[in-house]
Amino acid sequence: MGLVVQKYGGSSVANPERIKKVADRVASTRKKGHSLVVVVSALGDTTDDLLELSRQVSKNPSHRELDMLMSTGEQISVALLAMALHEIGCDAISFTGGQVGIRTDSAYTRARILEISTNRIREELEKKRVVIIAGFQGISSQQEITTLGRGGSDLTAVALAKALSADSCEIYTDVEGIFTTDPRVAKGARKIKKISYEEMLELASSGAQVMQSRSIEVAGKFNIPIHVRSSFSDKEGTWIVKEDSSMEDVLIRGVSLNKNEAKVTVSGVPNRPGVAAGIFRALAKTGINVDMIIQNIGKSADTDISFTVPKGESENAVRSLGALRGRLKFKEVSLDPNVAKVSVVGIGMRSHAGVAAAMFEALGKKRINIEMISTSEIKISCIVKKSDGEKAVRILHDEFKLGKKEGR
Amino acid sequence: MGLVVQKYGGSSVANPERIKKVADRVASTRKKGHSLVVVVSALGDTTDDLLELSRQVSKNPSHRELDMLMSTGEQISVALLAMALHEIGCDAISFTGGQVGIRTDSAYTRARILEISTNRIREELEKKRVVIIAGFQGISSQQEITTLGRGGSDLTAVALAKALSADSCEIYTDVEGIFTTDPRVAKGARKIKKISYEEMLELASSGAQVMQSRSIEVAGKFNIPIHVRSSFSDKEGTWIVKEDSSMEDVLIRGVSLNKNEAKVTVSGVPNRPGVAAGIFRALAKTGINVDMIIQNIGKSADTDISFTVPKGESENAVRSLGALRGRLKFKEVSLDPNVAKVSVVGIGMRSHAGVAAAMFEALGKKRINIEMISTSEIKISCIVKKSDGEKAVRILHDEFKLGKKEGR
Repeated sequence: MGLVVQKYGGSSVANPERIKKVADRVASTRKKGHSLVVVVSALGDTTDDLLELSRQVSKNPSHRELDMLMSTGEQISVALLAMALHEIGCDAISFTGGQVGIRTDSAYTRARILEISTNRIREELEKKRVVIIAGFQGISSQQEITTLGRGGSDLTAVALAKALSADSCEIYTDVEGIFTTDPRVAKGARKIKKISYEEMLELASSGAQVMQSRSIEVAGKFNIPIHVRSSFSDKEGTWIVKEDSSMEDVLIRGVSLNKNEAKVTVSGVPNRPGVAAGIFRALAKTGINVDMIIQNIGKSADTDISFTVPKGESENAVRSLGALRGRLKFKEVSLDPNVAKVSVVGIGMRSHAGVAAAMFEALGKKRINIEMISTSEIKISCIVKKSDGEKAVRILHDEFKLGKKEGR
Repeated sequence: MGLVVQKYGGSSVANPERIKKVADRVASTRKKGHSLVVVVSALGDTTDDLLELSRQVSKNPSHRELDMLMSTGEQISVALLAMALHEIGCDAISFTGGQVGIRTDSAYTRARILEISTNRIREELEKKRVVIIAGFQGISSQQEITTLGRGGSDLTAVALAKALSADSCEIYTDVEGIFTTDPRVAKGARKIKKISYEEMLELASSGAQVMQSRSIEVAGKFNIPIHVRSSFSDKEGTWIVKEDSSMEDVLIRGVSLNKNEAKVTVSGVPNRPGVAAGIFRALAKTGINVDMIIQNIGKSADTDISFTVPKGESENAVRSLGALRGRLKFKEVSLDPNVAKVSVVGIGMRSHAGVAAAMFEALGKKRINIEMISTSEIKISCIVKKSDGEKAVRILHDEFKLGKKEGR
């Protein structure tokens, strides 16, 4: 018996039927004697519906008003879940983020949680009530409603688990956990039992979008064990936990694929100090997130610089750089949206050499051309042609024997 | 130039197009130099949609959770209206009831406003912003979200007009004002220019549902002039104001029809003290609102008692009384749902005799049978057969010459 924080995503509460199923699961957890705090996202498509409404009245809505609007989605969910719990005889009470004192800064649409006052929650838990809290939202010191950005309900759950010193934090979603790779791409993909925060972060940033990155960071920082699992089954999911020595026995934890980036190449860049800085300072100013960067410095006077950006920002990046051509004296900017990023991730890499070589060889043998490479201590990413992306994932999933039992 | 409170009902903000129209109207009022507080209801069918969602998860939802749920409707409206105003260059800011300190008691789904702290509103008005406030909702001293009951946005507007000492309070709706009777029933119905709070209250309680009764009471108590008008036209609507001497020149202000009541008759009631009290105490206990009551006390030992109740409560009333039969020794309880209440209302009645006689004669001449009568100082109501209801309205509208210009 302990304190459990559960978070249910939008697909888990997409309609009244599913809300009732969630209520059943919550009630059965409660019956085991656990104290229970439940964080809920907005019903299925509500967030998109609300965004569409806002678009119909304004081309560029104020972020404050967007948060006022979007926060209603989660408020609807918590009220309905409380009702569904009452209906099956389980005492419960719902709260907005503001009501339970989830204090944030005033950065509307992407606010950061500053502190959570747990008094009200503890009061209700002592009354043996399930406490249901609207995810994704908070309140600023000026009593303004704020939201935490895409996937913010994960962060609400993790931050509550921390504030309440919860024994565990369960993230319910529509998949059964974290897989060695996307099962739709590689049939042999296997559910991972245990993964470290770092590995999960690298997988998330490489395209596996089961959990919001910031929430994994926070969980890791405070060492909060996360159980990612399906709201449609009772099977164990994946535990995201602190790295332990047994984990190093596994070389590669998973392979991920990201088709949402585009490659921008600036060619004929004068080979002198300050030019690269000029390029990336310009991009940073317009708020564009640059991911991988490569530059080949040869002996010639000119060089090429390539980098990847999220597809949605690629045209903007090209435009911003075009404006700099006169000043920085490069030749041209070109855009290739048809790329895919394939990454292998695993903390075992730290103590094993040769992963990169094995990866490049495996791809090379199957004639997949690598356009860019970037590495971190526990990740190697390659940019390949978009049409080669899924094939590359299957090759690497086989190469590192992730489909077999030993692979876990 | 002054401080104006405007309230827009659900049909006025039914969709993004209409919200933009409301924004245009608000902006043009603002341009005239007025300080402006705007109260908004939920978008068109939102309230019904939310109720339907709640029904799908619970047969008898907790009132606290209902308020949590329902209050989101108005929150969506205010955010969208603020965005629409920004889009046309009009500075505006939206607030929930809780954010601007509309304090209520804790009677969920029918809370009463206790006080409104106007600091935040005045601050924003001083910045020349239009202040948009979610109608229908407030916050209890325990920071719980409450709602004010059906039509509660009218009350929000009137209470704000009072708290801010507004110069006027405009209620925008989908009709052009208050009519001498329902124009769908009598073609000759005319818009009333000026009506007293008392007359409006009697009309409202008799079935003309343009404005919530409680909000009219509050407006009357604090002498706040209300302008009821259409959000789809620029025409003057109807002013609801304090009675003045000129109003007495008009005998009858309007005729109303209410088809939402049912008649319950308790027959063979022993003619002795305490029996009637026993009946109505039982109804009061179950929360049933009794409207008209008649009892004929003859010389016999037995008597009949008839009364009307809202249709939705009629079966419950019959059931409650049935349980009392043994104790109170009456013969039987019967229910007639096929009745209509026709009322004539006018403060002129106070100083003119003979209105009742004229009313009964007019109906009698056309062979409409009157089943029950009740009177107040400025109103006479008759229960007739439901099928005679509209005909009775037309007869009385003609009889009292309401369709002619002199009738105003």
